[in-house]
Amino acid sequence: MKTGRLEAFSDGVLAIIITIMVLEMKAPEEVSLNALLKVAPVFISYLLSFIYVGIYWNNHHHLMHVTQKVNGKILWANLHLLFWLSLIPFTTSWLGEHQHYKESLPVAAYGFVLLMCAVAYFVLERVLINYHDDHFALNKLPKLKWKDYVSTTLYILALPLAFINTLLSIICFVGVAIIWIMPERRLEEFMEKE
Amino acid sequence: MKTGRLEAFSDGVLAIIITIMVLEMKAPEEVSLNALLKVAPVFISYLLSFIYVGIYWNNHHHLMHVTQKVNGKILWANLHLLFWLSLIPFTTSWLGEHQHYKESLPVAAYGFVLLMCAVAYFVLERVLINYHDDHFALNKLPKLKWKDYVSTTLYILALPLAFINTLLSIICFVGVAIIWIMPERRLEEFMEKE
Amino acid sequence: MKTGRLEAFSDGVLAIIITIMVLEMKAPEEVSLNALLKVAPVFISYLLSFIYVGIYWNNHHHLMHVTQKVNGKILWANLHLLFWLSLIPFTTSWLGEHQHYKESLPVAAYGFVLLMCAVAYFVLERVLINYHDDHFALNKLPKLKWKDYVSTTLYILALPLAFINTLLSIICFVGVAIIWIMPERRLEEFMEKE
Amino acid sequence: MKTGRLEAFSDGVLAIIITIMVLEMKAPEEVSLNALLKVAPVFISYLLSFIYVGIYWNNHHHLMHVTQKVNGKILWANLHLLFWLSLIPFTTSWLGEHQHYKESLPVAAYGFVLLMCAVAYFVLERVLINYHDDHFALNKLPKLKWKDYVSTTLYILALPLAFINTLLSIICFVGVAIIWIMPERRLEEFMEKE
Repeated sequence: MKTGRLEAFSDGVLAIIITIMVLEMKAPEEVSLNALLKVAPVFISYLLSFIYVGIYWNNHHHLMHVTQKVNGKILWANLHLLFWLSLIPFTTSWLGEHQHYKESLPVAAYGFVLLMCAVAYFVLERVLINYHDDHFALNKLPKLKWKDYVSTTLYILALPLAFINTLLSIICFVGVAIIWIMPERRLEEFMEKE
Repeated sequence: MKTGRLEAFSDGVLAIIITIMVLEMKAPEEVSLNALLKVAPVFISYLLSFIYVGIYWNNHHHLMHVTQKVNGKILWANLHLLFWLSLIPFTTSWLGEHQHYKESLPVAAYGFVLLMCAVAYFVLERVLINYHDDHFALNKLPKLKWKDYVSTTLYILALPLAFINTLLSIICFVGVAIIWIMPERRLEEFMEKE
Repeated sequence: MKTGRLEAFSDGVLAIIITIMVLEMKAPEEVSLNALLKVAPVFISYLLSFIYVGIYWNNHHHLMHVTQKVNGKILWANLHLLFWLSLIPFTTSWLGEHQHYKESLPVAAYGFVLLMCAVAYFVLERVLINYHDDHFALNKLPKLKWKDYVSTTLYILALPLAFINTLLSIICFVGVAIIWIMPERRLEEFMEKE
Repeated sequence: MKTGRLEAFSDGVLAIIITIMVLEMKAPEEVSLNALLKVAPVFISYLLSFIYVGIYWNNHHHLMHVTQKVNGKILWANLHLLFWLSLIPFTTSWLGEHQHYKESLPVAAYGFVLLMCAVAYFVLERVLINYHDDHFALNKLPKLKWKDYVSTTLYILALPLAFINTLLSIICFVGVAIIWIMPERRLEEFMEKE
C-alpha cells in the first residue's frame, strides 16, 4: 500500500485536533479587559498545544516523506499515535482552566499525554524501520539522537516535578517544544537531496 | 469516475467522527483524582469507539485500494455507511455517561449502531462487486469468512444480551474489535503483490 | 488553475458540515425509551439534512469531474455555495428542536436556506459554463431539465406552504431529496465514457 | 519537499475554521421573528469572517500554486499563519454577542487578529521568496502593491478607531474585504499562462 491515504487521514485528524482546541476559548460575556485577561491561561495552553501538534505534524510529514509503503501494522501504529494526540485537547482544556496551572494533577496529566505521544511516535518509527529494508531512508537519516535523549529526560522529569512545583514542570514542556522547533540543518539538506 | 474524491471525502468524515468524540470528554472543574476518575467511563467508551472507527477506516482503505471505478450507486452506498458511522459519537456519548454502561438501553443503542455500520459496509461491498467484473480484486481477495460470521454472531447476540447483562454485551463489542485488529497475514501478502 | 485544491477544500467543508450536525443530537441524560424518542425530531431532521448535503456532494463531485480549470470568480462562486450549505446545520438544529417542525418560522427558514443553496449551485454552474468554451462537457451533459424545474417549483412552493401547513412544506423537501437520489442512468453512462 | 501535504493540511485547518464558526450561531429556543433577529449580529460577524477566511484560502491557493518546494522554516511560517487564522472564530464569537459590535474591546480584538493574520501572511511570502531563486514566480507576479498598502493602512487605522467609533472600525474591515474580493485580472492572466 502507498502512504497517500494514511497521510490524508492523519492530516485530517491533526487539522481537527489543532483547531478544536480553540473552541475551548469561550468568548467572555463581558467586554472588560479583565474578562479578556481571564482567557489568558486558556490562550497560553492553547498556544503551547498548537506548537506541540505542529511539531508532530512536521515530524510526521518528514517521516512519511521517506516512507514508500505501509502495512496493516503501520496503519495501527499510526492510529495509536493519533489516539494520544487526540487527547491533547482534553488535557489542554483541563490545564487551561482558571488557576489549574498551579495544580499538580492537570499539569501531570498534560505531561503524561505528551509523554505517551512521544512513545507512540517512537513505536511508529520502529515499526516503519522493521518493515523496510536496510536501504530505508530512515536508517540513513542524520541521527539527531541528542534531541531524543534530552526531550525524553525532560518528559520523565516533568511528571514528578508537577507534584513539587508545577512551574518547573511547565518549563520542561516549553523546553521540549523549543528543542523541536529549532531547524535541523542536516535533516533539511538530506530532505532536499532526496 | 475514479475513487479519489470518494476517498478524500470519506477520510474527512471519518477523521471528524474519530476526533469529535473527544469533545465529549469534558475537562473536570475540580482537580482531584476522583474528578479525573469520573471521566473514566467516557474515556473507555471513547477508546472502544476510536478502535471501531479505526477498523472501519482500515477496511475502507483496503476496499478502495482494490476498487478502480465508482458510480452513483456506490457513492450513495458509501454515504449510507458514513451516516451510520456518524451516529457512533452519539451512542458513545450516551454510553459514556455516568453509570450508563450498566443500563440496557444505551448499551443496546450502541450495539445497534455498530450492527447497522456492519450491514452498511456489507452493502457497500456487494454494490462494488456488482459494478465490477469477475476479475475484480475483491472477488480474488483471500476470503476471511470466519471473521464475518463470528462478528455477525457477536453483534446479533449483543443486542438481547444488553437486556440480560450489559457486561456480556460489552464483551461482545470488545471481542469483535479484537477480531478485526488482528493482522490478516494473507490479506497483507495479497495487498503487497498488487 | 487546476481543480484539485478547490475539490479538497470543498470536500473538507462538506465533510465537516455533514458531521457537525450530529453534535446537535445531545445524548439524553435519562435512559428511558421516552428520553430516546425525544431525540427523534433531531434525528429525522439530521437524516434529511445528511441526505441533502450528500446530494450536493454528489452533484459537486460530478460537476468538478468535468471541469478542467478554474479562476478566481469560480473560487468565489464555490465559496458562495459553501456559505449557504454551512447554514444547514443551523436551520437543521432549529427545526429539530422539540415541536418546531409544527412551527412556520423554523420550517420556512430551513426551506429558505435550501433554496439559496440551489440558487448558489445554479450560479456556480453558470460561471463554470461561461469560463469554458463550447466543447465544455457541462454543455454536452444530457440535460435533466425536469429535475431542475420540479425541484425549483417545490422549493418555491415550500416557503408559503410553511405558513399554511408545515407538513406540506416538509413533504416538498422530502420530495426534492427523492428526486435527486434517484440514479441518473444517462448521466452515469456519459460519465463512464469520459 | 513538495507542497502537497502542506496544502492538504492548510485546506483541512481552513475548512474547519470556516465551518466551526457556524456552531456559534445557536438555534434560538423560541420561534418568533424576534428570536431570529437576535441571531443577526452573530450572522453578520459570521458572514464577514467567512469572507475573510475565504480570501485567505484564495490567496494561499495562489501562493502555493506558484511554489515548487518547501522547507522546515516555510512549514512553521505556514503554521504561524494558521495559528492567527484559528483565532478568528474566537474574536468573531466575541464580536457577535449581543450589542458587542458597539463596544471598543471586542471590535479592537477582532481587528488585532486580522492584522496579525496579514502580518503572518506577509512573513510567509518573505520566507517563500528567500527560499526560492530569482526566477521564482512570486517575484514575477504582477505587483498589486496598492492593495497591500491600502489594506495595511485600513488595518492600522481600525485599531485606534475602535476606541473612538466602532462603526468606523467595522467599515475598515468591510473595506479591506471588498478590496480583496475584487478580481485581479492581471493575476488571473498570469496564472492562466503558467
